[in-house]
Amino acid sequence: MSRLQEFREFRERMNNRIFEQDHLGVNRFFTLDGKAYEPGALDSLTKEFAGLSASMVLRCDDCIAYHVIRCKELGATDEQLWEVFNVGLVIGGSIVIPHLRRAVALLDELKADGAT
Amino acid sequence: MSRLQEFREFRERMNNRIFEQDHLGVNRFFTLDGKAYEPGALDSLTKEFAGLSASMVLRCDDCIAYHVIRCKELGATDEQLWEVFNVGLVIGGSIVIPHLRRAVALLDELKADGAT
Amino acid sequence: MSRLQEFREFRERMNNRIFEQDHLGVNRFFTLDGKAYEPGALDSLTKEFAGLSASMVLRCDDCIAYHVIRCKELGATDEQLWEVFNVGLVIGGSIVIPHLRRAVALLDELKADGAT
Amino acid sequence: MSRLQEFREFRERMNNRIFEQDHLGVNRFFTLDGKAYEPGALDSLTKEFAGLSASMVLRCDDCIAYHVIRCKELGATDEQLWEVFNVGLVIGGSIVIPHLRRAVALLDELKADGAT
Amino acid sequence: MSRLQEFREFRERMNNRIFEQDHLGVNRFFTLDGKAYEPGALDSLTKEFAGLSASMVLRCDDCIAYHVIRCKELGATDEQLWEVFNVGLVIGGSIVIPHLRRAVALLDELKADGAT
Amino acid sequence: MSRLQEFREFRERMNNRIFEQDHLGVNRFFTLDGKAYEPGALDSLTKEFAGLSASMVLRCDDCIAYHVIRCKELGATDEQLWEVFNVGLVIGGSIVIPHLRRAVALLDELKADGAT
Repeated sequence: MSRLQEFREFRERMNNRIFEQDHLGVNRFFTLDGKAYEPGALDSLTKEFAGLSASMVLRCDDCIAYHVIRCKELGATDEQLWEVFNVGLVIGGSIVIPHLRRAVALLDELKADGAT
Repeated sequence: MSRLQEFREFRERMNNRIFEQDHLGVNRFFTLDGKAYEPGALDSLTKEFAGLSASMVLRCDDCIAYHVIRCKELGATDEQLWEVFNVGLVIGGSIVIPHLRRAVALLDELKADGAT
Repeated sequence: MSRLQEFREFRERMNNRIFEQDHLGVNRFFTLDGKAYEPGALDSLTKEFAGLSASMVLRCDDCIAYHVIRCKELGATDEQLWEVFNVGLVIGGSIVIPHLRRAVALLDELKADGAT
Repeated sequence: MSRLQEFREFRERMNNRIFEQDHLGVNRFFTLDGKAYEPGALDSLTKEFAGLSASMVLRCDDCIAYHVIRCKELGATDEQLWEVFNVGLVIGGSIVIPHLRRAVALLDELKADGAT
Repeated sequence: MSRLQEFREFRERMNNRIFEQDHLGVNRFFTLDGKAYEPGALDSLTKEFAGLSASMVLRCDDCIAYHVIRCKELGATDEQLWEVFNVGLVIGGSIVIPHLRRAVALLDELKADGAT
Repeated sequence: MSRLQEFREFRERMNNRIFEQDHLGVNRFFTLDGKAYEPGALDSLTKEFAGLSASMVLRCDDCIAYHVIRCKELGATDEQLWEVFNVGLVIGGSIVIPHLRRAVALLDELKADGAT
């Protein structure tokens, strides 16, 4: 199973598991998280770019993967993604590089997958 | 002296001091940092939003102040800034709240200053 | 004005300012944050201890101040607080020490203030 | 081998390897770390909850796994663990979610393992 | 394939992939990163020690692996590396321990590999 | 009172206050922290450089100040310090810049103080 498939399968399975636990605070947090990227004074793609740069500097591979996938679904070009990668790299420093490697590998996997 | 004035005065004075030190690596880093926000596949404002969310989750008051000022200079509305504040808050958690308070105080100071 | 007074005054003023902005996502986040410490399967004080250790390792002075104040309001002894300080110090390392210094100074200020 | 088994096997093997290196500072650190959770002004479970929330916001899967296992050994209920998960999530933000997924998967594995 | 081999293969492959993307800012960042460890007012090994401690407290396994490999290539003794491990552990806290375990495992793998 | 004086006065006063609290775990941690920089397989200055880079990437002004002061006491040249600043900046990214500004201001203050 590719990293992309693994990420998607585990994410969906565990999100379901978490929702079924029915902890009010946790479930409301997940709702708030989802709503933060809905279009408002800014469109969804701009918000996803902001989420991607934040995920890069916090160095969370799963969060980076999620925002890269969403950016592509919303029509981001590769050139735009690399501009955000660059902002994340400059702000976060060389400690971000291992995560950039994995982000680029996932982006290439996404394309091979026909998702772009 | 207001926080806005203090921030600007100290930032400019120390940036000059650092450039005069003439350390090649450090000076090149400052150049790279500046160029990351120049328009390219994304416009400067979108990049500043990405820089702002990253600064919020990393909880750096000076970086947040800088990106808020730049966003306003580039024409961001308050509603747009609050959308980025919200993305930063949801990704970074309640630990971001003290920085949100200071960001909002600075935004209000910017307006009183006639900068918007 | 003491650090304790400054913290309380700025926190209350800016929380009001933020609520008045009326951003739905931000306001809901503040509500979720407040509810996380209400008694449930764990009492409030145990949750505040968990919040305090998390704030220490994330090295947020304002968050540490808030949880120290809440712990004392809920009846924590100094000995209990020092046990949490120790957990935070061991997990977070010597980088936590400057925040421990400020936490202890605030705790002493709280007592001088008659709050304990 | 399950994640739980892998975690336990690697942790024990490498802890032995590290102790045998006989670096005085490192070994004393490990001792201090162990002692921080011994009962004192607070019982061990309360300290483990504080350790768990700190591990969540620092987003360390192995540390989270360790504290979840210890909490269950000390008699924590699932409801209590979810309260700590919620505190960690609200303080640390959505960046904690991937670690929450793995914490819940490990908790389920622990049960299947007969550990609860 | 061992962790050492995997790390080296993925790192080289993705670095090539990233350079071929030809993003000016990203490529310049990689150059700056490389140059930071070249001998100057400090020799390369002292800089690598500084890079290793920084990587430990930021808890980046790949960065730790890279600096450990470089330190050994530059002639560091095991005793010297353990002194840096200890500095990283004390500054960064017990949250660093899982990364220390992996660093020591990699160091042992490096030796089995004949690299020392 | 200058920032250097304030830092020294508060640090000494609160360290005394903490030691007098007589919490065994906390006091042992302070001892471990001090011993980590004593000469061993590496000399003290090399360890202080490692501590300085770690403090920079963790963005702790007080820790940076302490290690800068110690480095100068141990005979570090400005050129050597700037090399470590550069390593910290490249690893930690532009988020380190505000701390670099304050580190350089403190270094200049140290000189004006006759400490170099």
